[in-house]
Amino acid sequence: MRKAEINFYFDYLSPYAYLAWLRVQKLCDKYGSDLKAHPILLAGLLNHWKQLGPAEIPPKREFVFKDTYRFAKTHGILFQLPKSHPFNPLMPLRLSLKETAGDQQTQVINTLWQASWGQGRDISNIEELTKILDEAQLPTAKLLEKIQDPAIKEKLKSETSQAIAQGVFGVPTFIIDGELFWGNDQLTYLEMRLQGQDPLDLTPAELEFLHSHPRSASRM
Amino acid sequence: MRKAEINFYFDYLSPYAYLAWLRVQKLCDKYGSDLKAHPILLAGLLNHWKQLGPAEIPPKREFVFKDTYRFAKTHGILFQLPKSHPFNPLMPLRLSLKETAGDQQTQVINTLWQASWGQGRDISNIEELTKILDEAQLPTAKLLEKIQDPAIKEKLKSETSQAIAQGVFGVPTFIIDGELFWGNDQLTYLEMRLQGQDPLDLTPAELEFLHSHPRSASRM
Repeated sequence: MRKAEINFYFDYLSPYAYLAWLRVQKLCDKYGSDLKAHPILLAGLLNHWKQLGPAEIPPKREFVFKDTYRFAKTHGILFQLPKSHPFNPLMPLRLSLKETAGDQQTQVINTLWQASWGQGRDISNIEELTKILDEAQLPTAKLLEKIQDPAIKEKLKSETSQAIAQGVFGVPTFIIDGELFWGNDQLTYLEMRLQGQDPLDLTPAELEFLHSHPRSASRM
Repeated sequence: MRKAEINFYFDYLSPYAYLAWLRVQKLCDKYGSDLKAHPILLAGLLNHWKQLGPAEIPPKREFVFKDTYRFAKTHGILFQLPKSHPFNPLMPLRLSLKETAGDQQTQVINTLWQASWGQGRDISNIEELTKILDEAQLPTAKLLEKIQDPAIKEKLKSETSQAIAQGVFGVPTFIIDGELFWGNDQLTYLEMRLQGQDPLDLTPAELEFLHSHPRSASRM
């Protein structure tokens, strides 16, 4: 069991990231790990990897809603679909940067997750967002002014491209000691790793083999 | 607790489908459910939904290998990467159709999963495939002749298009009473459903809301 930094990459569009955010905080409390939150643009990942998001494939979108509902229900987590989905996540993501929220970053992120997927409120709407920040007694005017700053807008883009450079292809993603875990279901392995018991017990040569494994077919 | 038919959609390209196949058989034994196996072409799904497969995004391919390795290791399941990946799955999929294998369908599928992801053998290679079928004491010559039949080739395509028509977008997929579950991690909910305890306790109107949920943003 050891202290480690857990990097958490997320976009408010992902209900799996909502579930994972609640759970990874408990894990960090338990193991004394530092949690570093990285708001990123899922759309940026999808554009880079030339991939569709779950919400862009109708039966997959419906399945994801059901799957996350089932998970929340069985784990006693408050869960409500946002008013519309996908929505525009730019404002909430910019608000969630360390550079915007400073020491209140965790509180801002908690507030926005609870509002969107906990209560189904529309965090893409400026009036609603103002109410949400006010209710949480956050410095609304200051925060909303900050996200107009071009440097903040740029920072969200650079967080996204830095994530891509590390191989992030979806959200939520956790990176710990350079090892990438994708998905809410990875909390199990994340915890095993913190306990020094990652079941991936391969040699460096075997890991390299996974990385550069030969292909013998591709779609035309 | 009740008897139900579980439809299992798979392609040998998916290590998650390998893990799920082993586990769903145990579930069917436990609940007396009938298992109906549907070999389908993952490439056909991807073409239809205009989506990339995990193996087509390099860091995702590597993550999937690691994730399935971890799962196999923690569940005591034999696991070995096939010689190359992706490989051409056409022959093994055609061999696995009810119309090809008849009463030996389950045995053929077990044999091919064990060979590919259990032992890392190349089931896309005809010589290796012949050995594998021989070793399992299956009627190799008869089976390999059957998959030359244009009707069998057509059947694999029609299984794939019928799956798409039901909303199948990935493998493994389970369909039970028209309800679609995607992924190896869904065995938990599948079992809850067989016990009459599906946590998705929504009204028909609420389910319709999930299905036709409004969107307010899209990528250009």
